[in-house]
Amino acid sequence: MTSTKFAFRKRDIQAAIAALQMRFGERVSTAASVRDHHASQLTWMSSQPPDAVVFPESTDEVREVIALCAEYRAPVIPFGAGSSFEGHLNAPEGGISIDLSRMNNVLAVNAEDMDCVVQPGITRGALNGYVRDTGLFFPIDPGADASIGGMAATRASGTNAVRYGTMRDNVVSVTAVLANGEVIRTGRRARKSSAGYDLTRLLVGSEGTLGVITELVLKLSPMPEAISGGICSFPDIRCACDAVIATIQHAIPVARIELLDELTVHALNRHSQLNLPESPLLLLEFHGSPNSVAEQADRFGEIAEAFSGGPFRWSANAEERTRLWKARHDAYWACLALRPGARPIPTDVCVPISRLADCIAETKAEIAALGLPAPLVGHVGDGNFHVQPLVVMDNPDEIEKVRGFMARMVERALSMDGTCTGEHGIGQEKRKYMEREHGLGTISAMQAVKRALDPENIMNPGKMLEFDT
Amino acid sequence: MTSTKFAFRKRDIQAAIAALQMRFGERVSTAASVRDHHASQLTWMSSQPPDAVVFPESTDEVREVIALCAEYRAPVIPFGAGSSFEGHLNAPEGGISIDLSRMNNVLAVNAEDMDCVVQPGITRGALNGYVRDTGLFFPIDPGADASIGGMAATRASGTNAVRYGTMRDNVVSVTAVLANGEVIRTGRRARKSSAGYDLTRLLVGSEGTLGVITELVLKLSPMPEAISGGICSFPDIRCACDAVIATIQHAIPVARIELLDELTVHALNRHSQLNLPESPLLLLEFHGSPNSVAEQADRFGEIAEAFSGGPFRWSANAEERTRLWKARHDAYWACLALRPGARPIPTDVCVPISRLADCIAETKAEIAALGLPAPLVGHVGDGNFHVQPLVVMDNPDEIEKVRGFMARMVERALSMDGTCTGEHGIGQEKRKYMEREHGLGTISAMQAVKRALDPENIMNPGKMLEFDT
Repeated sequence: MTSTKFAFRKRDIQAAIAALQMRFGERVSTAASVRDHHASQLTWMSSQPPDAVVFPESTDEVREVIALCAEYRAPVIPFGAGSSFEGHLNAPEGGISIDLSRMNNVLAVNAEDMDCVVQPGITRGALNGYVRDTGLFFPIDPGADASIGGMAATRASGTNAVRYGTMRDNVVSVTAVLANGEVIRTGRRARKSSAGYDLTRLLVGSEGTLGVITELVLKLSPMPEAISGGICSFPDIRCACDAVIATIQHAIPVARIELLDELTVHALNRHSQLNLPESPLLLLEFHGSPNSVAEQADRFGEIAEAFSGGPFRWSANAEERTRLWKARHDAYWACLALRPGARPIPTDVCVPISRLADCIAETKAEIAALGLPAPLVGHVGDGNFHVQPLVVMDNPDEIEKVRGFMARMVERALSMDGTCTGEHGIGQEKRKYMEREHGLGTISAMQAVKRALDPENIMNPGKMLEFDT
Repeated sequence: MTSTKFAFRKRDIQAAIAALQMRFGERVSTAASVRDHHASQLTWMSSQPPDAVVFPESTDEVREVIALCAEYRAPVIPFGAGSSFEGHLNAPEGGISIDLSRMNNVLAVNAEDMDCVVQPGITRGALNGYVRDTGLFFPIDPGADASIGGMAATRASGTNAVRYGTMRDNVVSVTAVLANGEVIRTGRRARKSSAGYDLTRLLVGSEGTLGVITELVLKLSPMPEAISGGICSFPDIRCACDAVIATIQHAIPVARIELLDELTVHALNRHSQLNLPESPLLLLEFHGSPNSVAEQADRFGEIAEAFSGGPFRWSANAEERTRLWKARHDAYWACLALRPGARPIPTDVCVPISRLADCIAETKAEIAALGLPAPLVGHVGDGNFHVQPLVVMDNPDEIEKVRGFMARMVERALSMDGTCTGEHGIGQEKRKYMEREHGLGTISAMQAVKRALDPENIMNPGKMLEFDT
């Protein structure tokens, strides 16, 4: 497949914009500030703004937008809350950003079925505010107040995936508009089905390259009767990881088990006025009945002690817990203050949990050699961790060093039967690792699926697969 | 697409068999008894034996078989343990059955990661025997001692899906041979990944129509420290269903919650020499710490009482529990004795749990009008239930009546936002409901995926999709 076929022409894109303006009037913007805002903002790669941004308000309007873009052959880039890291929102070929933030309604809450039907532009925070009175909540928590549609498109997870799963597990079905303008619904509200291909899971994690999600049925979970939580320091990372492995193997249904390295703890102490011991720290949360959360916390305390950790202090005090998790979620920002003027280059990998201690220890050794501050945090119950080296972006040497570091981090994860990304997605820069991770045959199968559903490659081109090269 | 393109020619199939015999010698059988055994045996539809059966012993041999079948254009039908109900193993176009029962090894058990790597021919019983010493188990339990490959291919679930999920949730990745002869691995052993399309979930539930699964990485679960269980009678089905809904909504992490209607209880009493009260019955199991299972059982007892059920008798006695679950798993056979000389026509649907009581009540009313014994059992925590009318197969009127009953049962489930099958799959007869369930756009997308990965339609043709009409 030659790149010629998939090159997009400026004049086609301009024609698409003109047609969109005819149809949507002021809901199409070509203002530089709006376009800039719709490029990937949190990525360390170059920002590549779209040629225009359109603000549809219904599935049918998304269908119209895509039909027009298909007619004129213009790239289509769905936009939720702009919180992805891997350049998913960039427009390397130009094109039309579809901003779904106006489609932010909850369409139904079926409390008896513990599900809800939402539009993609609602954020997880807004959704949880909406359903609070039902005694249910939507558990997936990637940190940022991301949009639900974006979280589905990138197969997001976060701090409590260890207990509640990822977006893969919590999306029951989606409505999506495909490149051919078809509106499809991938499943019904039944909790399980054996009726046909699992197009729900095919679209979840497809990063906008197969279709634009315009509606989702989500599982909700019962708000736990009791929540307890606490922190536990360890003398080194390996002890902390071993305690995590033992916790999972003892089937303690921990809701969150987060690792913060000593540098991150230091940053949080400074940023959030905490007074945590500056050594590797596990931050935990338990959900269940009052008896069960007490039992879980006690059992974890025993495990921690066996791995030289502790003392494990826990409490069911909501205020203290909220303060700690607020600090954890601020880690990204707290760490920025470690090196004023620098930018973080966040990256993540995920390995089988038995390899986690090795993988993190080797990564930490490399960080020491890197000579840059690079805080490390992890959703360690899943074997997933993040590093964010802080780089002065106008120093190309630093960027090159970090590129090499990241490549070795991916290679290390792959050599341990892990993946090049546990939750951030592929986007632009990690495309180069896809063949190494999956093998050529699997990539060919992915490309075949992509071509089958988007033969003209208009859906978020230049992402995930190296389709046109 | 005309059916001409996809008609298979007898002489091509014979040429494929000759080539297979050259390569595999006595591991290719055309004996009538072997061929008959490899047609669908448990379906009420006609048995349609393949033209030959081949017994490969490795992924590479499966690759060779498929390459030869592709070369000569012969249908390929994967065979595990033969326990599916929906005609998945039939060869309506003739072709080659690939019997995977010799590929029944456990290739690795990674106890620390709580996963294992197996070949598809191993049964769940054999797998659980193999891993017993590790303190781990493979939870999915469809009743029959099905093969793991077959369970993946049909997205099986069963009695404890309410706690442990279905095959969708418990397959980490698969190795599969595609129609083009490529061997692909759909993922690594990391518990989560955002690296590309979820081909694992695309193959799970694809019923052999996209590829033949030759290896699987499975999640294992920690054997619960304690198990308690018990039974609870209810005055009517609606009370039982309402108790189930309340149990799920109260977040009691029940491991199994099975409904048996009064006719099934009657059959079990006769078949297994039990003395259960012959009214709707819930059969429950709780997994957890000793405290937690006691607490769960007590809380369920309170809920049961609130819905006029009980008394709820529970115990942690393993012997009594085993006897009850053995009886539950024998229900299929026990029910056969209700009408000697008749065959069961088993079918299943799944609805959102809020509609379960209505759906079952309406179905029971229809069963009363049907004038045939038709026991009903359900994995009710998921909203999934089964009916198996007992039909004298040489009475075409009875078969027609049951066809009508099944069609209305599907229509009822669909009208309640449910699915035409929760766990049995589509196979042959339920293909006609696919468009009604999914809509034409979604079916077109499924067909596009099918064509992309199997353009010559050699993989289990005549199943799931009405591809060639």
